[in-house]
Amino acid sequence: MTPPGATLWATDLTARSRAARVRADRVLTGAEAHRFDTGDPFPRSPRPAHRMPSWLPGTTGVMETRGPWRRHREEQRYATPRLVVYQDEITLPDGQPGHYDWVRVPDLVRVAALVDGRLLMIEQYHYLTGSMWQLPGGNVDADDQDNEAAARRELAEETGYRGGRWTPRGAVHPMPGLTPARVHLWSAEGLTPGEPAPESGEADLQVRHLSLDEAVRAVRDGRIGCASSAALVLAVAAPR
Amino acid sequence: MTPPGATLWATDLTARSRAARVRADRVLTGAEAHRFDTGDPFPRSPRPAHRMPSWLPGTTGVMETRGPWRRHREEQRYATPRLVVYQDEITLPDGQPGHYDWVRVPDLVRVAALVDGRLLMIEQYHYLTGSMWQLPGGNVDADDQDNEAAARRELAEETGYRGGRWTPRGAVHPMPGLTPARVHLWSAEGLTPGEPAPESGEADLQVRHLSLDEAVRAVRDGRIGCASSAALVLAVAAPR
Repeated sequence: MTPPGATLWATDLTARSRAARVRADRVLTGAEAHRFDTGDPFPRSPRPAHRMPSWLPGTTGVMETRGPWRRHREEQRYATPRLVVYQDEITLPDGQPGHYDWVRVPDLVRVAALVDGRLLMIEQYHYLTGSMWQLPGGNVDADDQDNEAAARRELAEETGYRGGRWTPRGAVHPMPGLTPARVHLWSAEGLTPGEPAPESGEADLQVRHLSLDEAVRAVRDGRIGCASSAALVLAVAAPR
Repeated sequence: MTPPGATLWATDLTARSRAARVRADRVLTGAEAHRFDTGDPFPRSPRPAHRMPSWLPGTTGVMETRGPWRRHREEQRYATPRLVVYQDEITLPDGQPGHYDWVRVPDLVRVAALVDGRLLMIEQYHYLTGSMWQLPGGNVDADDQDNEAAARRELAEETGYRGGRWTPRGAVHPMPGLTPARVHLWSAEGLTPGEPAPESGEADLQVRHLSLDEAVRAVRDGRIGCASSAALVLAVAAPR
């Protein structure tokens, strides 16, 4: 089945560029744009002139070597305040030409917070995946000074706990083939209880206190279905 | 700075629907479309008529309850053979109206393969994230009968090892806020060596044999920067 516009798209460059111009839902505010720029998405390659993001769909002419990959051209194809989709024109490691579609979203944080020797765990219905247990966490926002600030803010919003001693536990890429976004991992102890302040999507959020053994069991039996939460639970529970 | 087409997009529905028609790069083949349909992305909610995906950007009028969320309308906004972006019109758990942008991509697999008591590990330059160690794995493809077949295929392609005894280790959501895609985890032993057959993006792929202790150290020092690989390494290394 051929859609009405498919041939047009492939052959009529005038129509194509008109479509590209109207593809943005609206202009992002500076604060919204900043949400996507909290980390360095390409830590191992020099960033060319488009380091400061242009938030309208458009084209950047670049030639860049990334290990065995080469990037010739980057085009923003679709943008909303929550995500931006790019299509890069590339040469693959085996020398073949190709395209690479990828998505820019904000970095994330997860926290292993110990209270009286028990881990704080969030139970919540996720719009896309159903009920799930996760460690407290969420997006690094435009207003967060750094990812530690984001982790402290998310823990306080979701559980009420604040203060304490914080230890960085590294960062992981949740989907390295789709997005350069990272999940920054933290552990925290010596926390002070307070009032939670859940966001509008978190009205059903519940906080559980699990022993480390129970948390590891919850990873093994699938209740903790979030990849980075599972990695962090196992990392803090495993003997050194 | 206002882009030329931004106001048009928001106000001119005729232009908007024309843009929607030309937004698909091309018609996906049946096999390509199937790549996105290997799992059930919404396991806890009934799927309405759009369960068989329409691969052209379009609109579906649905009303569905998902735990404390409500979905009124789903619209495909951008599609390539690698990903599809949707924007759903929703009611948030606190009762406020809103939009939810999300991405459909194929499910993935990762394998903890033990050979002579050592874990097979892949070192590879990723286009978006730089050099990284991961467990063998990749996308569930259209031709894969199920995710176990995908895991066996990816292990053979990347390392040459095949056969053996396989154990499911559950599944995790790598980015539950962005995509319903899952990473299916497996362990395997008693494997038979053979010739690898890397894909075009994997010309620089190298296979390492790590003891479980070394693999756990590699998670802790950040060499294994892939969230689901880290979770699976720690799961197979942790005492029961």
